[in-house]
Parts: sequence; C-alpha cells; structure tokens
Amino acid sequence: MPHKEQPDFQELLARGQEGDRRAVGRMISRVETNGVADHVMMRQLWAHTGRARVIGITGPPGAGKSTMTDRMVKYWRKKDYRIGVIAVDPSSPFTGGAILGDRVRMNDLALDTGVYIRSMSTRGQLGGLSLACSGAVSVLDACGYDPILIETVGVGQSEVAVMNVADLVLVVSVPGLGDDIQAIKAGILEIGDVFAVNKADLPGADRTARELQIMLGMNPDMNADPPPILMLSAEQNQGVDALCDSVENRFALMQDSNELMTRRNRRLEKELLAYIQDRLYKRVLAPVLIADPFANNIEAFRANERNPYTWAEGIMKKIEERTP
Amino acid sequence: MPHKEQPDFQELLARGQEGDRRAVGRMISRVETNGVADHVMMRQLWAHTGRARVIGITGPPGAGKSTMTDRMVKYWRKKDYRIGVIAVDPSSPFTGGAILGDRVRMNDLALDTGVYIRSMSTRGQLGGLSLACSGAVSVLDACGYDPILIETVGVGQSEVAVMNVADLVLVVSVPGLGDDIQAIKAGILEIGDVFAVNKADLPGADRTARELQIMLGMNPDMNADPPPILMLSAEQNQGVDALCDSVENRFALMQDSNELMTRRNRRLEKELLAYIQDRLYKRVLAPVLIADPFANNIEAFRANERNPYTWAEGIMKKIEERTP
Repeated sequence: MPHKEQPDFQELLARGQEGDRRAVGRMISRVETNGVADHVMMRQLWAHTGRARVIGITGPPGAGKSTMTDRMVKYWRKKDYRIGVIAVDPSSPFTGGAILGDRVRMNDLALDTGVYIRSMSTRGQLGGLSLACSGAVSVLDACGYDPILIETVGVGQSEVAVMNVADLVLVVSVPGLGDDIQAIKAGILEIGDVFAVNKADLPGADRTARELQIMLGMNPDMNADPPPILMLSAEQNQGVDALCDSVENRFALMQDSNELMTRRNRRLEKELLAYIQDRLYKRVLAPVLIADPFANNIEAFRANERNPYTWAEGIMKKIEERTP
Repeated sequence: MPHKEQPDFQELLARGQEGDRRAVGRMISRVETNGVADHVMMRQLWAHTGRARVIGITGPPGAGKSTMTDRMVKYWRKKDYRIGVIAVDPSSPFTGGAILGDRVRMNDLALDTGVYIRSMSTRGQLGGLSLACSGAVSVLDACGYDPILIETVGVGQSEVAVMNVADLVLVVSVPGLGDDIQAIKAGILEIGDVFAVNKADLPGADRTARELQIMLGMNPDMNADPPPILMLSAEQNQGVDALCDSVENRFALMQDSNELMTRRNRRLEKELLAYIQDRLYKRVLAPVLIADPFANNIEAFRANERNPYTWAEGIMKKIEERTP
C-alpha cells in the first residue's frame, strides 16, 4: 500500500525528544503496527538516530535477567542517562504471566520520567518481532534515550533474532541450573560480548564462570580478546556497577575498533533487504501466484498428476519473463 | 544457476530403495549441499515420497532425547520397520562434542542395516538447516524408511524451524531440571503432539507431568482433545513401548481427521515459496542491487547526505519498472 504522510509524526517526535513518554509510546505503537513498512516515519527518524548504545540482555530462564536489568537501569540513572528498556516476550502465550511478574518489579522505575519501559510480544513471528523491536529502538534512539536495553524472556527461537538488533549482547547465566550452560550454547554463546554470572553468592558460581571461560576458549570464531566474564548478585545489588562499567568500556573499545559501526551497517543492510524482499513478494510474486495458486494444484500434486517442483519452476519462469 | 541433469541419481535412488545405505548417504549429502535448489533431484524424489511418518523429538538438554530415540528405534525394529534417524545439532560449534557422545550410544544401531542414522549440523543458518533436513526426509521417505525420527540437540533457535519438518512433534521433559518447563515454553509447547516425561523413576516426575498438563490446559490454541502425556524411563527401558504405540495411534488419528495431509500440504507450500523467494532474490533483486549496492551508499547514509529508506524505495521502484 502507498505510504500516506502522517502530519503529526514530526510533532510526536519533537514531544518525544522533550521527554513526553506518551508521544514515545504512540510512535512505537505505530512502528509495531507498520514496521519499517512505514517508510515516511523511518525516513524522518533516520536523521535523529545512531547515538544510542543498544544492549541486548539474554540467557536461560531463571537467570534473573529482569532484576539485573532493573539494577543496571538504576545504576545508570545515577549518571543521568535517559534509558530505554524493551522487554521482549518471545511468542508463547504461556509466558504472558511471567513477563507481567517481571514488569511489576520495575514499577518504581515506571515512575521515573527518565526511563521508558516497553513490553513487546508476538505470536511466533520471528522476523516481525525483531523488525518491531528494531523500529522501537530507532524511536527511543531518536528521542535521546541512551543506553537502550533489550531484555529477552525465556530461551526461544526469537532470542538470537532479537539480539541481532543490539549493538552489544550481554549473556547472563547462573550457577546450579544444571544444564543451563548447555542451554545457552545454541546460538547465544557465539553472540555474547559480555558475560555475567548472576546469583554469584550461590554455591557453584565459580564453576559456572570457569565453564563459561572454557567454552568461550573453545569458540574458533572468537576474536583475539575474549569477552569479559563478570560475577554479580543483582538481587543483593553487588557487582552491578562493575558490570555496567565493563559494558560501557566494551562500547568504547567497539567504537575505537570501528566494530560498532560495522555491526550497525550490517544490521541496517539486513533490515532494508528484508523490507525490499517483503515488498518484492507483495508486488512481484503475489500477482503471479494468484494466477496459479498452490492450493489449486495440491490435489494434482498428491495424485502425482503434477509435480510441485515443476510448478515452482513455472512460477519462476513467469516472473522472469516479465523481468528482462 | 541452471540445474544440470544428474544421470546417476535414479540409479542411486534404486539402490537406496534396495537398502544400500551408502547410496542413501550420497543422496542426502547432495540435498544438504543443494537443498531444494537441486530441482531435478527433488522432482525425481517426489513420486516416491509421502509414505513415511516423520516424528520430531525435542526438549531441553539433559532430557535424555538420544537414549529415548535409541529405545524407540529398537522397539520399532521389532515390528520390522525400516527406520531413519536424523540427529540435528543446532548451529553451535560448542555442541560438536555432545552430539558425538550421543551418537556413540547408537553405535550398535549403526550395525543394523534396517536403520539409517544421519547427523546434521549447521552454523546458525536456520532456513538452511530445516531445508536440508526436509530434503533428507524426502530421501529417506523415498527409500522406504518409516518412521523417520528427527532428534534435535539442545534448546535453540533452530528447534522450532526443524520441528516444522516433522508430521508429529514429541516433546520430552524430565523432573528436577528446575526451570526446564519454563525453558520448553517458548515456541515448543505449542507444537507438541505427544509429551513424554522421561526419567520417571526420579522424584518429582508426577509434578512435572502435572505442570505440563496445567500448561497445556492454558493453551488457547490447543484443539479439543489434548495431547497425551506419557511417563517413561528410557534408561531402564520402561514405558517406551507405550510411548511408541501412543505415537502410532496419534498418527492414525491425524490421518483420519485429515490433519496429517493438511500439515504436509502447508509444509510443502512453505518450502516451495522459500525456494521461489530465494530464486527471486538471485534473479530479480540481485541484478538491481549490483547497479546501486548498499555498500556504496553507507557513508552517505551515515553522513545524512542520503536516506537509507529512500534508497530502498528506489531499489523497489527500479524492480517495479521492470515488472509491468
């Protein structure tokens, strides 16, 4: 569909930049509904973005991510940062309760006008979730929030996709969750820039840290300087300051080495290509499919009167005939 | 690229159907490299597929999936089924060791010519993994293996994508892994058709089963008859027969209700569309991008001399001009 000008957006943006959180919320809602498809909006946001440091926080369930996020926000608030928090609840209807519980702990933060907290959930639409999340980051960035924390709830398919939206990924683990080191292996360990062992007052914390160290050493793709591993107890508010400082230092290093810009460019490219491919589907593929839809062929496929792969070839040919 | 005829494929297929496992392996390797892009091959396979019952086995690490798979295969072998096993290791270089360990336990099965075991791994290429897996299933199906078990290792992003390749999903849990019920929530619980509580001899097994029952009751999307929850101890080979029978019964029900065909058709459509979109990218989008690549614009984007979303619009316009 064509993108109509939305006259009030500039005004919303101006109000958001002055700290009007309702304006921020309205802009994010708009992104959530339209994604980057709302081009006029994304174009307007662009000039104001690129300042915020976006931190992804992930790890197995029960690692205390929410409490940690809560403490980190409070520490950084002392530095007068304006902070954005996006709490992502991946897909499942079952986690609905959990995330509410988490957010309750943040209620006191919600009163702080220097903090914007937003919960996001989806029904398994992976690309959709990370796109909406990325859009929300742009809004918060444009409104001067920095850092922006993206906290994921649970271990799930959306995890890595959402973490791709962050500049830096903080992986949280805890002792005594048995196989959890195992659990955070798949895909998560590779993307960690800083590692935290939470509940470090519990027995086995050192072992958990050692295991992490060993596994990070095993990673062939890991660059020369290994990511820091910090012990803390968010619940008792111990080691949170050191963690926050270490995250800020990491950002400084990434800036100097230009790694930060490289990641952001890669992310921007992926986002734009995803948008283009989506449009390509709607404008180029869909019309051809309407003429010879899959559904009309399925019985012939199953009866072996027609071959599905020949059908797919045919669809491609029709498209290519139209594109010299 | 054009798909050259592969003269020896028909011969490989014939040999695979006679039980030559080396021929089966060669065909799967070809699918793994080419995916559905190897159209000639997929076309040739099609007429021979659609008989195998494809079972996905998933659950948190430490749930004993491999042992369970091992026992199930042995039980079904008594019924003279020819069985295919695909062990999927999602992405991480870290899990390399684990899966070898798992496979060792299956060594005695490897000697059984009525069983074909294949390990699959990837470096985070989600679509790639499920496509390769789906191709391997087609090969095994065409060679007369039924059932085909797809076992995933660990909890990760690939989990749900891979499970989409299966007709029926078996979700395994165990007592005492603390937050694991939590851990399997995200995306997995929704797709479970049969649930197993393994290590049922451990304390807390009943509680785990109850928790599952409650959460399945909470699922609004769940259809009228809830999925069965079975207790077993794979290690002690207790309850495995009941689990296998229950899985077979479930398949019978799905066949009667036509649910099985509905799922297979949905899967086929998704697979074909993924293939078409991949081709669309290569044949339609790529040429346009070459003329005005993202990389050449990034500095102008960052300097706010050019707007990335305007660039994306431009790319789309160029494509649409070429497609009346």
